[in-house]
Amino acid sequence: MAFAFIRYEVANRIATITLARPEKLNAVNGAMVRELIAAFEAADSDDAVGAVIVTGEGRAFCAGADLSSGSESLVAPGSADLTGPDGTVDYANERMREVGGRLALVLYNLRKPVIGAINGAAAGLGATLTLPMDIRIAAEEARFGFVFARRGMVLETAASFFLPRIAGIGTSLEWCMSGRMVDAAEALRHGLVNAVVPQGDLLRAAERQAREIIDNAAPVAVALVRQMLWRGLGMAHPMEAHRIESRGIHARSRSADASEGVRSFLEKRRPAFPDRVSQDMPDFYPWWEEPPYA
Amino acid sequence: MAFAFIRYEVANRIATITLARPEKLNAVNGAMVRELIAAFEAADSDDAVGAVIVTGEGRAFCAGADLSSGSESLVAPGSADLTGPDGTVDYANERMREVGGRLALVLYNLRKPVIGAINGAAAGLGATLTLPMDIRIAAEEARFGFVFARRGMVLETAASFFLPRIAGIGTSLEWCMSGRMVDAAEALRHGLVNAVVPQGDLLRAAERQAREIIDNAAPVAVALVRQMLWRGLGMAHPMEAHRIESRGIHARSRSADASEGVRSFLEKRRPAFPDRVSQDMPDFYPWWEEPPYA
Amino acid sequence: MAFAFIRYEVANRIATITLARPEKLNAVNGAMVRELIAAFEAADSDDAVGAVIVTGEGRAFCAGADLSSGSESLVAPGSADLTGPDGTVDYANERMREVGGRLALVLYNLRKPVIGAINGAAAGLGATLTLPMDIRIAAEEARFGFVFARRGMVLETAASFFLPRIAGIGTSLEWCMSGRMVDAAEALRHGLVNAVVPQGDLLRAAERQAREIIDNAAPVAVALVRQMLWRGLGMAHPMEAHRIESRGIHARSRSADASEGVRSFLEKRRPAFPDRVSQDMPDFYPWWEEPPYA
Repeated sequence: MAFAFIRYEVANRIATITLARPEKLNAVNGAMVRELIAAFEAADSDDAVGAVIVTGEGRAFCAGADLSSGSESLVAPGSADLTGPDGTVDYANERMREVGGRLALVLYNLRKPVIGAINGAAAGLGATLTLPMDIRIAAEEARFGFVFARRGMVLETAASFFLPRIAGIGTSLEWCMSGRMVDAAEALRHGLVNAVVPQGDLLRAAERQAREIIDNAAPVAVALVRQMLWRGLGMAHPMEAHRIESRGIHARSRSADASEGVRSFLEKRRPAFPDRVSQDMPDFYPWWEEPPYA
Repeated sequence: MAFAFIRYEVANRIATITLARPEKLNAVNGAMVRELIAAFEAADSDDAVGAVIVTGEGRAFCAGADLSSGSESLVAPGSADLTGPDGTVDYANERMREVGGRLALVLYNLRKPVIGAINGAAAGLGATLTLPMDIRIAAEEARFGFVFARRGMVLETAASFFLPRIAGIGTSLEWCMSGRMVDAAEALRHGLVNAVVPQGDLLRAAERQAREIIDNAAPVAVALVRQMLWRGLGMAHPMEAHRIESRGIHARSRSADASEGVRSFLEKRRPAFPDRVSQDMPDFYPWWEEPPYA
Repeated sequence: MAFAFIRYEVANRIATITLARPEKLNAVNGAMVRELIAAFEAADSDDAVGAVIVTGEGRAFCAGADLSSGSESLVAPGSADLTGPDGTVDYANERMREVGGRLALVLYNLRKPVIGAINGAAAGLGATLTLPMDIRIAAEEARFGFVFARRGMVLETAASFFLPRIAGIGTSLEWCMSGRMVDAAEALRHGLVNAVVPQGDLLRAAERQAREIIDNAAPVAVALVRQMLWRGLGMAHPMEAHRIESRGIHARSRSADASEGVRSFLEKRRPAFPDRVSQDMPDFYPWWEEPPYA
C-alpha cells in the first residue's frame, strides 16, 4: 500500500507502520490520520498479519498536530458550519468529532496486537495516539508530553479514557495539568511503557515482542483476549466478564485451534493454529454494540 | 469437612484451603471447583473463621484445568445440548457458564478476606482463580501463566474484569496475548502479588497477614470494607460510594463494635469486637442486586 | 477569609489551606469540614487562584475525625431522627450523608488543581480527604492509616471510589482490611503519593508543583483537563471520552488561549493566557448532571 505520510510494510507476519514526515518531526495532519486508519484497517483484515508495529522515522516519534496547518482544521475538519448564527454549536453532529478520537476508536476495535516502538519525542497527539496501542516499548531517548494545557487545549484521542487507566489517575493529573515532558524512565516507572531499550535495539525489541505472540498464540484467541481485556476494563461488575468468557470458552473449546493447542502442548512442539481472524471469529463476536457518537 | 481434591482446615480463626492433587500439579476439574465453592461458602458463614488462606500442595500451586478430563467437559458442564440442530447456540442459558467464573463470583461476594499463598506455578485457571482473592503472597519459586491464547483459548474466571484492574491494562495485554510465564519478581513489580517471600516462609507470611486483620479489625467492618473496595472499583461516580458509605457510617457508628473500637483505642489495648458476620451485618447489606447471568 | 479551624491564604496565585488545630493533631470536626468546603469554593471561584495547596500545622497532617466530639455527631449531623419508631432507617434522606463524602464531592467538581502537602500522620478521614486531591506530596515523616476497620467503622469520603483507583485494588484491600499505618516510602511505591521529600522542603516542593502548572498551563484548560481525567476514570467506553473531547477541542481551538498557546510556543516565551475560569469555561461545561444522593 502506498501512502503519502506513512509507510506500511508487511514482513514475517508483522505489519510495520512508520510515521514518515521526518522533516516535520512526523507531525500529524488530517490526511495522515486518514492514512493511519486505512493502514490499521488493512492490517486488521489481512490474515497474513499477526501483529502491528508503529514507529517514527527520524529523531522524533511524533511531534503532535501539525500546527502549520492550523489547529482548527485538523481537529474538527469540516465543522466550521456547525456553529449557528446565534452562536449555538451543534456538538452532537458527527462532523464535530476530533480526528484523534476516530483513530483511537479504530485501534480500540482492532483484532491484532499493536506494539508502539517509540523512538523519540511523542508530544500531544503524538503521545495520545500511543495509548490505545497494546504494548509500548520506548527507546531511551523517548519522551512523552501531554502538553495540551500549555497550548490552551484539552485532551484528545480519547485519552481521558485511556491515560488514567494506563498510568494511574494521580500520575495522569500531574502530567496533563503541568504539560511537562516525561522521560522514558519515568514513563516506565508509571506503566506508560512496558519496557525501555537502547535506540539501536528498539525495532528488534518490538519485533521480538511481536514474535512472542505470533509464534505461540492462536490469532483468533489473541483477537478475543485483546477485546476482553480492553472492554473488561470498562465493566462495572465481573458478571459482565463471566457472560462473555462463558461464550468464549464454549465456542473456543470446540475449535480446531483448541485441539491443536492441547496436542502441541502435550507433544511439546510449536503450535500451528488453523483458525483465521478473517473467517473464524466466534458467532457471538462482536458481542457489543458500538455506542453512537451523539 | 471432607473433600476429595482439596483440604479444608480451621485453626486460630484461619481457614486454610489446600489444593490437594499434587500428583496432577493440583490441576482443576469440575468436582474440585464445586469443592472450592463449598469450602469458601463454609468459611463465609462460620464466625469462627476470620480469614481464609488458599495454597497448593507439592511443587505447583495449580496447573490449571485438568486437560486429561477434556477441556470441554470442564468449562461448561452439561452444556453440550445447548447447540440447536441448526447450529445456533443458546448462550444465555445458565448451564453455559464456565466453572471458573462461578467460583470467581462466589469469591467476589465473600465476607471474609482471602489470602493466596502461591507456592509454585499457577497457570491458566490456576492463575486466574487467584485474582478475586484480596491479597496474594508468592514464594520466590511462584510463576504465573495467563496461557489461554497458547492453547487457542480465552480468558475465564472473570479475569477480563479482574486482571487489568490488578496488574494494569498494558501489562495484562502483554501477559495474555503472549501467554508467557511471569516470575514472582515481575508479578510483584506489576502489583499481581503483594509480596514475595522465601518458600519456607510462605505460609507463615500468609498467616501473619491473616493475623494482622483478625487481631485488629472488626469482622463486620472487614466484610463491609472488602465489599466497598471491590464494588467501588466498578463504580462510575464517587456519589455511588458516598451513598453506600453514608449508610455504612450511620449504621456502624451506632454499633457495639464502634464503642469497643474507640474504647480500646483510648485504652491502648487490643479490641474485642462483639459483632458477628453471621448476624450483625447492617440492614442495608447487601446493597446490590446480583446481576443475572443472561 | 477568617476561619476557626483552618487558615486560608492566597499568595502568588496559590491558595494555601492549612488545617490549624495542632493541639488536636488537626482532628476534624463537623465545623472544620464546613470551613474546608467554604475555602475550596472560595478558591474555585477566585480567578486570582491558580492552584490550591493543603497542609497541616504541627507534627500531624490530620488525625482523622475528632473522637472527643463523638463519632456519631460528626458523621451524620442531624440524622438522629432518621430512624423510625420501628427501627427502619431513612437511608435515602439527604441528611444521612456523612460529611467526608460531601467534602470529597466538592473536591471532585473543583476547577483548580489541588496539591496535598502531607506533613505528618494522616489517619482515617485525615487520609481519605487527600484522595480527591490531584497530587499528593509527602514529607518523609508522613504516614497514612486507613484505620476504619480497627475502630469497627468503614470507609468514608467516597474512598471506596477513589482509593482502589489511586493505589490499586490489591494494595487498597490490604491497607483497609488490616488498618495498619503505611509509611511514606510504601505510599510512594503504590502511587498513593506522587513524591516524597524531606520535611523542610515540603511546602517548597508543593509550591514548585503549583508553579509548574500556573506558569505554563491555561487555567481554563487545566480545569477541563482535570474534569476529563477524573471523569474519564469512571467511563465505560472510550466513546464517552471522544464525545467530550471533541466538544472541548472544538471550543478551545477557537479560544483566545489557543492563539496565545501557539504564538508563545513558536516565540519560545512564557504564555499569558487571557481566558478566566470564572467566565470563559466553554458552553458545554459542565457536561454532566450531578447524580442525586438518594
